[in-house]
Amino acid sequence: MTTMERRFVYMDYNATTPLRPEVKAEMIEDLELYANASSLHEAGRRARSRIERSRSAVAELIGAKDPERVIFTSGGSESNNTVFATMFHLGRTGGRKGIVTTKIEHPCVLNAAKWLAEEGFPVTFLDVDEYGVVDMDQLKQAVGPETLLVSVMAANNEIGTVQDIKAIAAVAKAAGAYMHSDATQSVGKIPVSVDDWGVDYMTMSCHKLYGPKGIGGLYVRKGIRLEPQLTGGAQERKRRAGTENVAYIIGMAKALELAIAEMPDETRHLTTLRDRLIKGLFERIPEIKLNGHPTKRLPGNVNISYKYVEGESLLLHLDMNGIAASSGSACTSGSLEPSHVLMAIGLNHETAHGSVRMSLGKYNTEQDIDKVLEVYPGIVAKLREMSPLYVKTTCARKEFCDESGTCSVNK
Amino acid sequence: MTTMERRFVYMDYNATTPLRPEVKAEMIEDLELYANASSLHEAGRRARSRIERSRSAVAELIGAKDPERVIFTSGGSESNNTVFATMFHLGRTGGRKGIVTTKIEHPCVLNAAKWLAEEGFPVTFLDVDEYGVVDMDQLKQAVGPETLLVSVMAANNEIGTVQDIKAIAAVAKAAGAYMHSDATQSVGKIPVSVDDWGVDYMTMSCHKLYGPKGIGGLYVRKGIRLEPQLTGGAQERKRRAGTENVAYIIGMAKALELAIAEMPDETRHLTTLRDRLIKGLFERIPEIKLNGHPTKRLPGNVNISYKYVEGESLLLHLDMNGIAASSGSACTSGSLEPSHVLMAIGLNHETAHGSVRMSLGKYNTEQDIDKVLEVYPGIVAKLREMSPLYVKTTCARKEFCDESGTCSVNK
Repeated sequence: MTTMERRFVYMDYNATTPLRPEVKAEMIEDLELYANASSLHEAGRRARSRIERSRSAVAELIGAKDPERVIFTSGGSESNNTVFATMFHLGRTGGRKGIVTTKIEHPCVLNAAKWLAEEGFPVTFLDVDEYGVVDMDQLKQAVGPETLLVSVMAANNEIGTVQDIKAIAAVAKAAGAYMHSDATQSVGKIPVSVDDWGVDYMTMSCHKLYGPKGIGGLYVRKGIRLEPQLTGGAQERKRRAGTENVAYIIGMAKALELAIAEMPDETRHLTTLRDRLIKGLFERIPEIKLNGHPTKRLPGNVNISYKYVEGESLLLHLDMNGIAASSGSACTSGSLEPSHVLMAIGLNHETAHGSVRMSLGKYNTEQDIDKVLEVYPGIVAKLREMSPLYVKTTCARKEFCDESGTCSVNK
Repeated sequence: MTTMERRFVYMDYNATTPLRPEVKAEMIEDLELYANASSLHEAGRRARSRIERSRSAVAELIGAKDPERVIFTSGGSESNNTVFATMFHLGRTGGRKGIVTTKIEHPCVLNAAKWLAEEGFPVTFLDVDEYGVVDMDQLKQAVGPETLLVSVMAANNEIGTVQDIKAIAAVAKAAGAYMHSDATQSVGKIPVSVDDWGVDYMTMSCHKLYGPKGIGGLYVRKGIRLEPQLTGGAQERKRRAGTENVAYIIGMAKALELAIAEMPDETRHLTTLRDRLIKGLFERIPEIKLNGHPTKRLPGNVNISYKYVEGESLLLHLDMNGIAASSGSACTSGSLEPSHVLMAIGLNHETAHGSVRMSLGKYNTEQDIDKVLEVYPGIVAKLREMSPLYVKTTCARKEFCDESGTCSVNK
């Protein structure tokens, strides 16, 4: 076994990221600051002051003028759920009830939207094109005077496709609807500005940004209502109960600050590696397909379908070779259903099941790409040899095969 | 200024506790384990395995036979809210709808119960006696064939009174109702056993136990329904969505393990200090009243009303002397309303406003008690001198004053 083979290659940064040493250092320092930030004594006021400083930093970093508009939550899922819980309360009391979202949202938005549908809210799940881009004509038709909320994710967690949130928000606003964007995969990776985009609510995470897991944020525009998902104490101006996780809040502000400061360099680093990985895989492995938009995609996202193989088997073999990747998203792993995102971009069950996401991050290097390119073609070839489907539908003389893989000579 | 005066004395352990070095060490080690616990690769499986080991440990420590019955949440507020959200779903679909709780619960239970009342659920808020003990006769009358849930906190966060949850659960079970107990202030401080108590749901926190803030747990008995508060990914067997906070989960198991192992020694330590503090204050300061039960109370809790003074002013002066305490709870600090707990035990507005909670913990020493006993009488005396009420209703010849403070000579 060579040194390169033994190297552990982590390519699952869209699932979660390692904690940066700088963020860890800030958090550890704060773990000593043990007072409850709602306590009135000096120790409590010091914790409060650190929270508010972090809130101001986060607000500024997402282009929000007023720090008070940022609420800290336990993560992206809670932030997204809170927006839909607010719509439930607003819609029940009369007035607009229409919800417009897409087929490729994260399960925490999809499930919340399905819950509203069960509660009698008219919910539209918009289609996306083959690259995962929201159909703007369909959006304009779906949004009208009855629409309460338009919710579209800024960048997709599985295929990395980036939406034009500004244009989508304009449609929502023109109809007088609220605009929400789940920016869990976007904040700190691509430029994000709540004012420029024109969103009323925006969801943030932290553990995709080299910060801790278990903290997130929700931006709520001034004058826009928010119904607390968690009720109890008066924390976060009664918008989110529960003793504040001071250490993680500080970690979140630090992680975001660093991510945004380093974004130009990081984007260059990641797109270079990403494009090299895509090119290398296409050169070495036949019958594969890139999922997601060729250019409007997250810098580190590579999602590819490998015909005639199962994604789970690929993952297992990559794992045995020290390469950590994923099929679909971590949140849906273990599910037997094919990815709802890949189905929405038009893949059939088999192709969707044969897909692997390799998401790159800060600590990936050219050697990582080399290692993947070295071992991946052999893994795919081996698995394809074992596949009865592969033997049946391919032949040595590919020039006689049509696009579906059916041979025009031997049929 | 003597050395003793400069010493910082933290007596707000019921609000939150410092992170123990042993817990911090475990968590920091884990912050390096950065994989998403739902990822299928080796790094993900390692994170998953640490979560499941922690779950087993927590389950065993609370007397639950089956580890799967413990769910990790973002804290006590979320756990409590989740139980009430489940009742909302159960009660709406027909059958029982009655909710029986008490007037002294934490706001996250009270607010959730009020929400159910607004939704048409019949909610009873039980009275407590002058010590904060639930009225068992009233409980038996309130609980009947229409009761869906009985929810009573195991120990009160403000006055420290400990309830007989086993007896209360027996009443609930005899009527076929679910039994929930908010054990946020109890787990790790007094003996807790879900099977011995006979509870169906039990809420746990961690930051009251020298663990991190932003993590908690919910026990749910086998066969008892739970409706997720957060929906999305399939984490926690679809009972709580969101990427797992692996580091804090590990910290919670460690904090609980240590707290339970050290409980006998810790209880001795705290009750000794507590009783010395209470005795010392009663010897040095006239016209004060201990709130909560004289013996059935949390080992570290001291809650006292000081006639003719404002609790907030007391806190301010204690704080200037380096002593951190609280009025009411941290979750309600800043509120102008008197404590709902102190009102429930029969205090009038003035007395309730003149109350201070000093909650002791692991790192308090006899010197801390000495310092408080040294400075506190002077603070109270000074504030009373400034109080017009105090001047009016007392006189130098106290033997002529009746119980209400009215003088029988000068009236």
